[in-house]
Amino acid sequence: MPYPDEFEGFMINEIGKHQDFKKQSFKPKRFSEHDVDIKIECCGVCGSDVHTVTGGWGDAPTPLCVGHEIVGKAIKVGSQVKGVKVGDRVGVGAQVWSCLKCPQCPAAYTYIDTYGSPYPKEADPDETISQGGYSSHIRAHEFLVFPIPDAIPSHLAAPMLCAGLTVWEPLVRANIGPGQEVAIVGLGGLGHFAVMFANALGAEVTVISHSPSKKDDALKLGARHFTSSGEKGWAKPLAFKFDFVLSTADVLGTGALQDYLSTLKVGCKFHSVGLPDEPIKELKPQQLTSNACYIGSSHIGSRKECLAMLKFAAEKKLFPWVETIPISEKGCAEAVERVRKNKVHYRFTLVDYDKAFGG
Amino acid sequence: MPYPDEFEGFMINEIGKHQDFKKQSFKPKRFSEHDVDIKIECCGVCGSDVHTVTGGWGDAPTPLCVGHEIVGKAIKVGSQVKGVKVGDRVGVGAQVWSCLKCPQCPAAYTYIDTYGSPYPKEADPDETISQGGYSSHIRAHEFLVFPIPDAIPSHLAAPMLCAGLTVWEPLVRANIGPGQEVAIVGLGGLGHFAVMFANALGAEVTVISHSPSKKDDALKLGARHFTSSGEKGWAKPLAFKFDFVLSTADVLGTGALQDYLSTLKVGCKFHSVGLPDEPIKELKPQQLTSNACYIGSSHIGSRKECLAMLKFAAEKKLFPWVETIPISEKGCAEAVERVRKNKVHYRFTLVDYDKAFGG
Repeated sequence: MPYPDEFEGFMINEIGKHQDFKKQSFKPKRFSEHDVDIKIECCGVCGSDVHTVTGGWGDAPTPLCVGHEIVGKAIKVGSQVKGVKVGDRVGVGAQVWSCLKCPQCPAAYTYIDTYGSPYPKEADPDETISQGGYSSHIRAHEFLVFPIPDAIPSHLAAPMLCAGLTVWEPLVRANIGPGQEVAIVGLGGLGHFAVMFANALGAEVTVISHSPSKKDDALKLGARHFTSSGEKGWAKPLAFKFDFVLSTADVLGTGALQDYLSTLKVGCKFHSVGLPDEPIKELKPQQLTSNACYIGSSHIGSRKECLAMLKFAAEKKLFPWVETIPISEKGCAEAVERVRKNKVHYRFTLVDYDKAFGG
Repeated sequence: MPYPDEFEGFMINEIGKHQDFKKQSFKPKRFSEHDVDIKIECCGVCGSDVHTVTGGWGDAPTPLCVGHEIVGKAIKVGSQVKGVKVGDRVGVGAQVWSCLKCPQCPAAYTYIDTYGSPYPKEADPDETISQGGYSSHIRAHEFLVFPIPDAIPSHLAAPMLCAGLTVWEPLVRANIGPGQEVAIVGLGGLGHFAVMFANALGAEVTVISHSPSKKDDALKLGARHFTSSGEKGWAKPLAFKFDFVLSTADVLGTGALQDYLSTLKVGCKFHSVGLPDEPIKELKPQQLTSNACYIGSSHIGSRKECLAMLKFAAEKKLFPWVETIPISEKGCAEAVERVRKNKVHYRFTLVDYDKAFGG
């Protein structure tokens, strides 16, 4: 049973066996009149995919098809859909459905994740588990389907839909702009977007990284300063310097956290979009009092900000640094393993979907 | 050697023996031309005093005279002092000296604490340990000496200088005003100020307390709603409700924290001015993502906000609920022990200093 009754994807059958991708069929949620069906052209490989298939974030339902940085072509749209028509090039990020009834909903906080989440009965009487974009097609609610500006090639648009939005949203929420000093902690997939965006928004950017070898990249991406956090006492000269510290690091030890916090001006925010497997141990409010700072976190962002980010990136030609890998069992395994080992500069997009799933 | 060479105070000689106050002499820092000497009229009893003398916040130098909510009369002013003259009624809070050279200084973050801190050499070649206000006199830098408006009686002004300012500062930094929903966690010394101030600033206030018996007081102080956090599931109906949660509670368990966070609107702040002895055991950034919230903390506040608070309180006649206790070895012990046991509604001020130290 091919599309529309079944989709095909490269799936994991046991959490922890994170390299054992198998090409399998799966049943999508039932089609509703607010849904858009997308034939996928490419999909970014996100750190979330890795945390999920390795089990670092805990268990997840299997078989599972990950991937939530999806670009493709709309091939079917429900009768209620307004902003998308058949043939449009569109994207889907880390969320695929919402009832849109709660007041906080437009800010993107009561949604069904793109993969691994059971749909509620009101969305799908079968309560199907959502499946992501290492696959032939995706079915998503129109509110979570974003038109891709012509100026952005698909394989570069894909990583924006999770990684890009994840750092864009806290930057704009914090009103980052000219006259502000912003630190970006970690220069990986998220970090490299953060440097580009913060710089383009007008801030003076410092990259704080454990890897001195990343200095050149940091400066090319728009950073004005680079601090190697492997050196003892690195934080001292940066005390009370930053208006905002955005951490994209995947590890957040209590000692390192204290160093980052010490670099904030009074009343300013440390915001982590890295979501480490290990918790921060033993946090005392006292650690926040010397500069009355705040610790926050978030994942992804709102529809409004996703559209704003795509427009901004298209206008300013802010494109991620992307390596492409043809999608296949081997390709998925390689991409996930290299992201796990941080061997990517700075983002993978799985491509050649026609070869894997037919044109 | 009486004043000006020595001051007298009720002091603790061993941290942990928190009821053994003894009347003793101590040597103040050397007088500088920016200093003001104050003959103390009364002093509030702060939770910090209790955390310090019990050892809950760790060790502290002894002999120690605590107390940092001080009101009295200026009896000597240095030649460089501008805003205070002999005879003025003035207050001193939790800080007594600063070099005033760092850019963050006006925001009150690089100061010498009123008690238990060694002065740096530039302030005092003897590097004397600062001593607080359970004493006959205090010597403080003019920048940290605040004129008390006539409309506020001394015993009511005293608790404002730490407790009041500690909650005032985060409220005004968060721009609390009309149209906002604010929760105050805990109704003690800090909490009762917070309810009064948040209400007077125009917010709709909810008190969240473990003690249902405090409901009447909460409403009298200006709260519109009261939630008893002893009841299972209390946080559910408050999900995504508040623009700001100000915690004054002295305990912050990981479970309780999660409940408080769940009541915040997207992107809003949980701010703890309670500084519990025990740390938060584990915090995952993931706990902050469901509403992209922030956790922060602070102690006291700036000179600018202290003056603003006193003006606001005088104009609006916002006075704390204060019980007075004559200062003596027994009076200090009783006050500290009752604050430790939360047996105070809602603040103590030590009075009758003339009887203890002479007129």
